[in-house]
Amino acid sequence: MGQPAFHWRDRFVAIRGNKMFEMVVISIIILSAMMIGVTTYDVGPTWMTVLHFLDIAVTVFFLVEISVRMVAEEKVRNFFRSGWNIFDFLVVTASLIPVDESEMVLLARLLRIFRVLRLISIIPELRILMNALVTAIPRMGYVVLLMFIIFYIYAAVGSLMFEKINSVLWGDISIAMLTLFRVATFEDWTDVMYETMAVYPFSWVYYLSFIFLTAFVFLNMMIGIVLDVMQTEHEKFNQESGEGTAGEVHWLKEHSEEVDQRLQRMEGMLKQLTEKK
Amino acid sequence: MGQPAFHWRDRFVAIRGNKMFEMVVISIIILSAMMIGVTTYDVGPTWMTVLHFLDIAVTVFFLVEISVRMVAEEKVRNFFRSGWNIFDFLVVTASLIPVDESEMVLLARLLRIFRVLRLISIIPELRILMNALVTAIPRMGYVVLLMFIIFYIYAAVGSLMFEKINSVLWGDISIAMLTLFRVATFEDWTDVMYETMAVYPFSWVYYLSFIFLTAFVFLNMMIGIVLDVMQTEHEKFNQESGEGTAGEVHWLKEHSEEVDQRLQRMEGMLKQLTEKK
Amino acid sequence: MGQPAFHWRDRFVAIRGNKMFEMVVISIIILSAMMIGVTTYDVGPTWMTVLHFLDIAVTVFFLVEISVRMVAEEKVRNFFRSGWNIFDFLVVTASLIPVDESEMVLLARLLRIFRVLRLISIIPELRILMNALVTAIPRMGYVVLLMFIIFYIYAAVGSLMFEKINSVLWGDISIAMLTLFRVATFEDWTDVMYETMAVYPFSWVYYLSFIFLTAFVFLNMMIGIVLDVMQTEHEKFNQESGEGTAGEVHWLKEHSEEVDQRLQRMEGMLKQLTEKK
Amino acid sequence: MGQPAFHWRDRFVAIRGNKMFEMVVISIIILSAMMIGVTTYDVGPTWMTVLHFLDIAVTVFFLVEISVRMVAEEKVRNFFRSGWNIFDFLVVTASLIPVDESEMVLLARLLRIFRVLRLISIIPELRILMNALVTAIPRMGYVVLLMFIIFYIYAAVGSLMFEKINSVLWGDISIAMLTLFRVATFEDWTDVMYETMAVYPFSWVYYLSFIFLTAFVFLNMMIGIVLDVMQTEHEKFNQESGEGTAGEVHWLKEHSEEVDQRLQRMEGMLKQLTEKK
Repeated sequence: MGQPAFHWRDRFVAIRGNKMFEMVVISIIILSAMMIGVTTYDVGPTWMTVLHFLDIAVTVFFLVEISVRMVAEEKVRNFFRSGWNIFDFLVVTASLIPVDESEMVLLARLLRIFRVLRLISIIPELRILMNALVTAIPRMGYVVLLMFIIFYIYAAVGSLMFEKINSVLWGDISIAMLTLFRVATFEDWTDVMYETMAVYPFSWVYYLSFIFLTAFVFLNMMIGIVLDVMQTEHEKFNQESGEGTAGEVHWLKEHSEEVDQRLQRMEGMLKQLTEKK
Repeated sequence: MGQPAFHWRDRFVAIRGNKMFEMVVISIIILSAMMIGVTTYDVGPTWMTVLHFLDIAVTVFFLVEISVRMVAEEKVRNFFRSGWNIFDFLVVTASLIPVDESEMVLLARLLRIFRVLRLISIIPELRILMNALVTAIPRMGYVVLLMFIIFYIYAAVGSLMFEKINSVLWGDISIAMLTLFRVATFEDWTDVMYETMAVYPFSWVYYLSFIFLTAFVFLNMMIGIVLDVMQTEHEKFNQESGEGTAGEVHWLKEHSEEVDQRLQRMEGMLKQLTEKK
Repeated sequence: MGQPAFHWRDRFVAIRGNKMFEMVVISIIILSAMMIGVTTYDVGPTWMTVLHFLDIAVTVFFLVEISVRMVAEEKVRNFFRSGWNIFDFLVVTASLIPVDESEMVLLARLLRIFRVLRLISIIPELRILMNALVTAIPRMGYVVLLMFIIFYIYAAVGSLMFEKINSVLWGDISIAMLTLFRVATFEDWTDVMYETMAVYPFSWVYYLSFIFLTAFVFLNMMIGIVLDVMQTEHEKFNQESGEGTAGEVHWLKEHSEEVDQRLQRMEGMLKQLTEKK
Repeated sequence: MGQPAFHWRDRFVAIRGNKMFEMVVISIIILSAMMIGVTTYDVGPTWMTVLHFLDIAVTVFFLVEISVRMVAEEKVRNFFRSGWNIFDFLVVTASLIPVDESEMVLLARLLRIFRVLRLISIIPELRILMNALVTAIPRMGYVVLLMFIIFYIYAAVGSLMFEKINSVLWGDISIAMLTLFRVATFEDWTDVMYETMAVYPFSWVYYLSFIFLTAFVFLNMMIGIVLDVMQTEHEKFNQESGEGTAGEVHWLKEHSEEVDQRLQRMEGMLKQLTEKK
């Protein structure tokens, strides 16, 4: 009696692993992405109807696809163990929520845009890239915190000193932080500076020290972390594959054990010889 | 009978490999580049005639040069095996197409500009640089794809939300992507932001998150890949030349085999000694 | 008699090392930071009174906290051996200075902003980051000096040549240096250039050579130093932990001594054997 | 008879190597730099007279200083072997040329600015930095050439296509290259693009491809080369000092010879033993 059920799941596993099936899924995601793109143009009502029916078709296909992948698992719980699967599930089910009011149409369309992100979850190379990025995040966390503290202090000082000069740019601490972000991207920062220099001639110290702290030192730290992560991965890969200098050093270490054993055997034999005498 | 033909090809091979001939070709390419430059200035009709005849001379020279290189090959097919040769052939033959109509003159002049690229195909150091760039392209491919997905999603959201605020910047998804590229290069991005913040006060989240995703994280990944490619090449070169740490590690690995053989011989002799007893 | 005193200090050491106590201190610092943020908004008089009393509470808490840490030391002198402690002490005591006049209120508020920096001194990960930055400073010193010389020379030339064209940008050497910093950040630098090119058509050489010297070459040197510092630290960490290629090489070096000793023993035994014969 | 002459030169060598003398020279260079700075401000006639006499004093001091260093050499020819010495000599002698006409005063003042560069030639750390930069130049040469070719081709195309739209930006090939440099620095590049997009809607391809080729790929190559040079130097230094992984690998290689000799001795003894039997 359990046989057919088992048989069923096997078939689903086969479908899930099928290259053809994967290609179809990728094509449908790209089609769905293009549909989103088309809706931003002014298209006639006929096209709107076509798009509406295509949207229903895509939604149904995604529902079928995710069901296949859920059924293919031994336990449904296993499916939800992967973050990517949870993401896929949310994106697919979110577009099932019926929207009647005109207000909600905007939200429904926004949700459909996230379907494009499914490309990342389905193409392995993109998933690896994303994982590499995510790996770098915790190390970046403290750099971002340090940056935030610097922004906060400068924004507090700026808001306190320059509020009366230009309240649009320095009105409160949050506006001042946005202005400082603008300065950090070098976007018309001299306009901001010349304005305050008319009142405080030495306010260039404020801007220059801020630019040095953020744009130069911290951007470099970010680059440093990214490179560090990349290099560690590069080294690890080389060690395992035996390629490059990292691979050769790993080989030398592994090999030295073999040499040790031979030397031990030789020492044993020598001892035997000297003792015999 | 085949002797003279063989004799002829040998002579062409000699011409092709001649340093002097190479120098003349480079000089003619630079002359042709300078001619293109001169035509962008307003020069008198006398100069125009001179340039016209010079252009014919250059075209004929390139034709002769490429013929020499084709004849120098054992089989013409071999000539087309190199991508650089195909490129040279296309550039040279393209300028042979006769242009009578005034409309086509622009196209003819555009084609002549590509002759400057022949400098890359003829100077070995530039060819190496280009190959290094081309090697990095496949690894960059997925980063570019990821970037494109992010641009596409943000452009879809931007076009949906901000179209009514400024249709010149957010009219449809392609215009929105161009606007986002502008934001990614920090070019007057605050003007774009302040405009939408007047309607949606929290739209700074949209811009800041976009800038973080593109300008910071992905630019770094690009740099990471370039450095990775450079480092791998640097290591490979060092290993082969025996220079640097990579070279020394390679020597150690090669050398350890020699040590192994000596140890094996010694163990053999020791066994002999112990067995004899 | 000394027992109770000893007992007291032990209790303070326990408090200082308490995770709970650290959390409370961090919370109070964050609260104090948020209070600074709130004052930049236009808040009613009721809130101002609340903030005033909260400020007194925070000041008292910081005083108690720093006293605990000072008493916990065997000698008060030890407390002032750490740069971070001196920094904390200055920040805390500075806010104790009574301010009556309205002029001084601004200064008092500015001093309170520096309390946010105490977050860096209390979170170990941020302290490590800051130390890494400080380590890189001496090596950066000479690069900054070289940059300053280049800025100074270009500013002197610019002030000499362009003063009559636009005295707002090139009036004296300090204004000219600020203008050059603006050019180095690419901020509307073409406006500056087009203005002088109207008088000196070849002044683009001045700007382009300056941009090449600063933005390209020196920024890269900065990045180079940051990476170098990061790499050295990464290598040192790997060597100590035995991870990565650096760790394996370190293991090989340590291990080679062991092999040497065995070989020495074996040679000794062999000598014995040959001599006996 | 040659004794006193020898005695004299020794004294000059002692002066040249004196730390105190070096400090005085550096102070005088800094004083001379500050004098240049002061002249860019509007100072009264009294100060102008003071500056004039100070300038004469500085010129005389530099003359004496360079004479000391020339006499300290065994042969004057040796002095001119170092590029830095030639540079110092030119800077010092250039300010000796008498200037009477008012026209030449500007040139004389420009020449005095170059005295600041003497700081680089006299501080060893700055000289090392400059040498590192100069080492990187030949490798950068081909990248710059490749960049120039790309700029030239794009400028030719731009000048051909956009001249009628805006002759100020695209008038001839040299103006077009300047405009493209502006685009490469992201300085108001969208203004340039929007103008041409009004005529050729697809001209964004021209700008985006140009930005990708220059700003992204080539800037990265530049960084790559700088890092490569830095890393090679870092590795070389570590190898020699025996620090870091590079130093340990170097030690391992050196040490392996010692092991080889011991093994050879042992094999010899073993052969002796087996042959005796």
